[in-house]
Amino acid sequence: MKKVGILMGSASDLPVVQKAIDTLESFGVPFEVHVYSAHRAPEKVSSFTAGAREAGFGVIIAAAGMAAHLAGAVAANTTLPVIGIPCSSAVLDGMDALLSTVQMPSGIPVATVAVNGAVNAALLAVEMLAIEDKGLQEKLREHREAGFEKMLASGRELEEKYNK
Amino acid sequence: MKKVGILMGSASDLPVVQKAIDTLESFGVPFEVHVYSAHRAPEKVSSFTAGAREAGFGVIIAAAGMAAHLAGAVAANTTLPVIGIPCSSAVLDGMDALLSTVQMPSGIPVATVAVNGAVNAALLAVEMLAIEDKGLQEKLREHREAGFEKMLASGRELEEKYNK
Amino acid sequence: MKKVGILMGSASDLPVVQKAIDTLESFGVPFEVHVYSAHRAPEKVSSFTAGAREAGFGVIIAAAGMAAHLAGAVAANTTLPVIGIPCSSAVLDGMDALLSTVQMPSGIPVATVAVNGAVNAALLAVEMLAIEDKGLQEKLREHREAGFEKMLASGRELEEKYNK
Amino acid sequence: MKKVGILMGSASDLPVVQKAIDTLESFGVPFEVHVYSAHRAPEKVSSFTAGAREAGFGVIIAAAGMAAHLAGAVAANTTLPVIGIPCSSAVLDGMDALLSTVQMPSGIPVATVAVNGAVNAALLAVEMLAIEDKGLQEKLREHREAGFEKMLASGRELEEKYNK
Amino acid sequence: MKKVGILMGSASDLPVVQKAIDTLESFGVPFEVHVYSAHRAPEKVSSFTAGAREAGFGVIIAAAGMAAHLAGAVAANTTLPVIGIPCSSAVLDGMDALLSTVQMPSGIPVATVAVNGAVNAALLAVEMLAIEDKGLQEKLREHREAGFEKMLASGRELEEKYNK
Amino acid sequence: MKKVGILMGSASDLPVVQKAIDTLESFGVPFEVHVYSAHRAPEKVSSFTAGAREAGFGVIIAAAGMAAHLAGAVAANTTLPVIGIPCSSAVLDGMDALLSTVQMPSGIPVATVAVNGAVNAALLAVEMLAIEDKGLQEKLREHREAGFEKMLASGRELEEKYNK
Amino acid sequence: MKKVGILMGSASDLPVVQKAIDTLESFGVPFEVHVYSAHRAPEKVSSFTAGAREAGFGVIIAAAGMAAHLAGAVAANTTLPVIGIPCSSAVLDGMDALLSTVQMPSGIPVATVAVNGAVNAALLAVEMLAIEDKGLQEKLREHREAGFEKMLASGRELEEKYNK
Amino acid sequence: MKKVGILMGSASDLPVVQKAIDTLESFGVPFEVHVYSAHRAPEKVSSFTAGAREAGFGVIIAAAGMAAHLAGAVAANTTLPVIGIPCSSAVLDGMDALLSTVQMPSGIPVATVAVNGAVNAALLAVEMLAIEDKGLQEKLREHREAGFEKMLASGRELEEKYNK
Repeated sequence: MKKVGILMGSASDLPVVQKAIDTLESFGVPFEVHVYSAHRAPEKVSSFTAGAREAGFGVIIAAAGMAAHLAGAVAANTTLPVIGIPCSSAVLDGMDALLSTVQMPSGIPVATVAVNGAVNAALLAVEMLAIEDKGLQEKLREHREAGFEKMLASGRELEEKYNK
Repeated sequence: MKKVGILMGSASDLPVVQKAIDTLESFGVPFEVHVYSAHRAPEKVSSFTAGAREAGFGVIIAAAGMAAHLAGAVAANTTLPVIGIPCSSAVLDGMDALLSTVQMPSGIPVATVAVNGAVNAALLAVEMLAIEDKGLQEKLREHREAGFEKMLASGRELEEKYNK
Repeated sequence: MKKVGILMGSASDLPVVQKAIDTLESFGVPFEVHVYSAHRAPEKVSSFTAGAREAGFGVIIAAAGMAAHLAGAVAANTTLPVIGIPCSSAVLDGMDALLSTVQMPSGIPVATVAVNGAVNAALLAVEMLAIEDKGLQEKLREHREAGFEKMLASGRELEEKYNK
Repeated sequence: MKKVGILMGSASDLPVVQKAIDTLESFGVPFEVHVYSAHRAPEKVSSFTAGAREAGFGVIIAAAGMAAHLAGAVAANTTLPVIGIPCSSAVLDGMDALLSTVQMPSGIPVATVAVNGAVNAALLAVEMLAIEDKGLQEKLREHREAGFEKMLASGRELEEKYNK
Repeated sequence: MKKVGILMGSASDLPVVQKAIDTLESFGVPFEVHVYSAHRAPEKVSSFTAGAREAGFGVIIAAAGMAAHLAGAVAANTTLPVIGIPCSSAVLDGMDALLSTVQMPSGIPVATVAVNGAVNAALLAVEMLAIEDKGLQEKLREHREAGFEKMLASGRELEEKYNK
Repeated sequence: MKKVGILMGSASDLPVVQKAIDTLESFGVPFEVHVYSAHRAPEKVSSFTAGAREAGFGVIIAAAGMAAHLAGAVAANTTLPVIGIPCSSAVLDGMDALLSTVQMPSGIPVATVAVNGAVNAALLAVEMLAIEDKGLQEKLREHREAGFEKMLASGRELEEKYNK
Repeated sequence: MKKVGILMGSASDLPVVQKAIDTLESFGVPFEVHVYSAHRAPEKVSSFTAGAREAGFGVIIAAAGMAAHLAGAVAANTTLPVIGIPCSSAVLDGMDALLSTVQMPSGIPVATVAVNGAVNAALLAVEMLAIEDKGLQEKLREHREAGFEKMLASGRELEEKYNK
Repeated sequence: MKKVGILMGSASDLPVVQKAIDTLESFGVPFEVHVYSAHRAPEKVSSFTAGAREAGFGVIIAAAGMAAHLAGAVAANTTLPVIGIPCSSAVLDGMDALLSTVQMPSGIPVATVAVNGAVNAALLAVEMLAIEDKGLQEKLREHREAGFEKMLASGRELEEKYNK
């Protein structure tokens, strides 16, 4: 199975990224994690990315905050699908990271998820890998169903309390 | 080859979506186009979407403006990867559509591109289909290179004029 | 008397929604509460909504955060008046939920209240039911008056302290 | 049948409000139009509003731009349901009018629609009057269906062109 | 000497408004405080305001949050200068109150200060009363000088520490 | 009678400022106009301002766009009341000028009006000068009434057309 | 004299960048222009930048729109001072480019100017080169003075017309 | 070596500015600190600034919040390069200070860094002084490298944990 590359711009992004890691683990999807800032380590980003397809990666997830260039810098060096997670920082509530990640010019796409939306970044990666993988398709279906059941269960107590 | 489903919330979104259609055609990727509003035709959206994987679709692109629910409504009914194009409308410059498309809750991802970013939506779809398709990988590489050459060419006249 | 349907996208929206419940109870207006996410349980939303008028509902209140599609998804399946409460979440102060709820396209209206404005959502529901119900009209008048008196009382101490 | 009151803050809001008028006419719902600015004619607003229920009104629609106080000023003087249309003006794209209309304090609700969303304001008014009126319910159902058919028709040409 | 009227939309605005009260007291300018919500007590607002000039008021300060209509409602009923203080509330950081206060239509001005800017609201009132009052002019000059000295003093320790 | 000083940051602000000039002329209030940029001519701003009270000015109006410092720079050099007009420029719709004008720190107030709100800036100046001037008070009352009548007239045709 | 490097992300940024070119030419400061997109030509950007100091550059100006990564990508590869010009594009008024350019993480600074602020970008470059160059200091003083005189002249006609 | 002038609008900005001081100290660059508000001490600002080049300053850093005029006021009085740090305050997350600092009109540039971006302000100052100073160039290279190494080290533990 193809691997998912997970890059984050700073080790301080880990609390957000951890949820992507956990989600991928729960699907049994192999992954690799690196802390490579687009600004502090541009060559690391480009060398990792340029060789990613050959190294067996199928998708890359990139998480960064502020003027979040990481996902774009990754996308500039590969035609693998790249998923961007805009991370919120001390001010501006992640609006800076969101616009820096999503507003990519024509030609270099980044698949952007919600501010701090690491679970969805991982699910999106799994969905991409599942296009040609029936096993993953089945796991996605089960995961979706579990979310549905959990939501219903969380509502049941409420409904019993109020709807007599 | 898997098909790409292209849904738009209104026929008035066509000027934006046309660029996604043209891009897919240039890659020789098969696609199908529908005008299904999430609000005016919710059942069309859910019936098309629920059967999409069986019908041979690999990715779905959804374009909508204002309180742009279409991509999310599609994503709610399938575990295929869903790409959302937020379309700008008469006021607010597409910020409403962007936030309505990208800020999806955990569990139901939408891969969001820039406001009116239809070319990138199509490229992203091709990148996803290319994960297991060497032919598409090669076409993506060529397309990327062509963009690079075009950029250089557009700069050459400028550079000759100013850099003596 | 017609019932008010109260839907929330997640059980975590309860702290906001509770104020709508309390307000309806204080008016003696019957209601029913459900946790139905537009994204995790789209069919629950549409089946509940499509049958709501026949089931005796007169108004539906829908509360959700982030890319808040719930109110729109409800409105897409009924011509009952639908009231949307945009809920704030960890980032962006509810601006994402506000725009996702209020910027509905022509044809499918959602009556939107303030971010986290659950009391007003309930009052609006009561006002709608009161159009043809003199008893509720009288209760609304009393409630308005009580708010007026409470405001005056809260100001009296202040006024006595400063205005000699 | 109860009437709908339509107030606008300035005659210059008519291009927006006209669509609400046309929509109400198409439903055969009686209405009355006034140009009463909350700031230039506060007493007109309050005297009209305070007597509105007695005068046979069931709902009031208020359209205004900039620091759009009209809907709130109306709501402050009646417990009829009040629908606010935020109108865009030369700058800020209606964001000022939207926040001024929707962010009402607890106790005085305004049912807010999209910026310039006059069609939906009228539909919302009809939905409220239809709660106890089977004729209007039927008309709403037909109107919804017509919107659905129109959307499908607008998409058909497109679909025939692209989906062979 | 003319009095300053201080209105606030809710007793919960007092922590902000207190600084305006303290500032006026420090200048020996007479004032009167009322809690009159534009929405819960529109008649109190208009009756107080309409008679304000006759009652000896020279300026009115109005503080409110959210869809902050108070200053505008006051200005609609008097040609006394009206100063608006936009108060921040739980979400949106006062941007709703700022736009609701400052974006007044032509004809009905409100002199708006910063979000929660109560000290400046009081100073502005004093400056207005000082136009024809040499005693107040002198007090303003002293107050300005004191602010200047305080700023210099606060900087001195810093400067001594770093600038050797 | 005290004069009104009108400063603008650039001659290109004249189309906005002209309406303030016209309004003051219609009240017969004397004024003086200068083009003094806070950034290109800081000494002109401070020398004009520091001597303004002695030169017979009662109020100063300052209009500027972008990082609109003019009103603040004026306020820093005088304790006359200063009115700021934020002017919109090619991008950002005047939001930059609005925040730069209104968000003044404690101690140095600027009475801010709406983006491009030059008529209200002039009216506010007249209201300040009218505090001790019964003639101006009467003119303000007449002007307000005229605005009221004009609004009613503009609405009459509309009302006759629709309200039979 | 050290040269100024001018990079733009796309030839379509030229209308903005032209003003920086003209300004540098008017100061007789040598420069070199390139169209190097951070996303379409990341290696061009990094190779040009990494060798820029050795090639005789003293400052680099980078202009880009949307998710404007160019200035940051340049700054990541050099410790020369880098000036970023955020360019506005079809939607969002350059707010995306502004935040993408200015919100750089600690360690990799970008000196950001106003949206489309190309003249100031060039002036800032000249100011940097002038730190150790008395000739440029003199030219800057003259340029500033000329701006001052031009402003005064533009105001004179106005002043003569209104201030009798 | 030329000195760096550090001005802050209020002693309360010190927690932000301290990081600029520490950074300059770590480079051995001489500096001088002053608390000079643009509004409370405009003459201090202009007299310090006007004489700054003669007094041996090469760059000036100015930090301020809210309607942050300090950097612009400094830039108006000198042709030394001026770096602006927008400081966040209690509301609006520094967006007011950012726009007030960066949106300077043509002719008077301010090199703006991120909200609270004091480290980068200092680095930018060092980069400017380093244009003609090989020693500083070397120190910048080492500092950049150290940031790179620190980033790699922070990632190593993570990488060892997850990438087996």
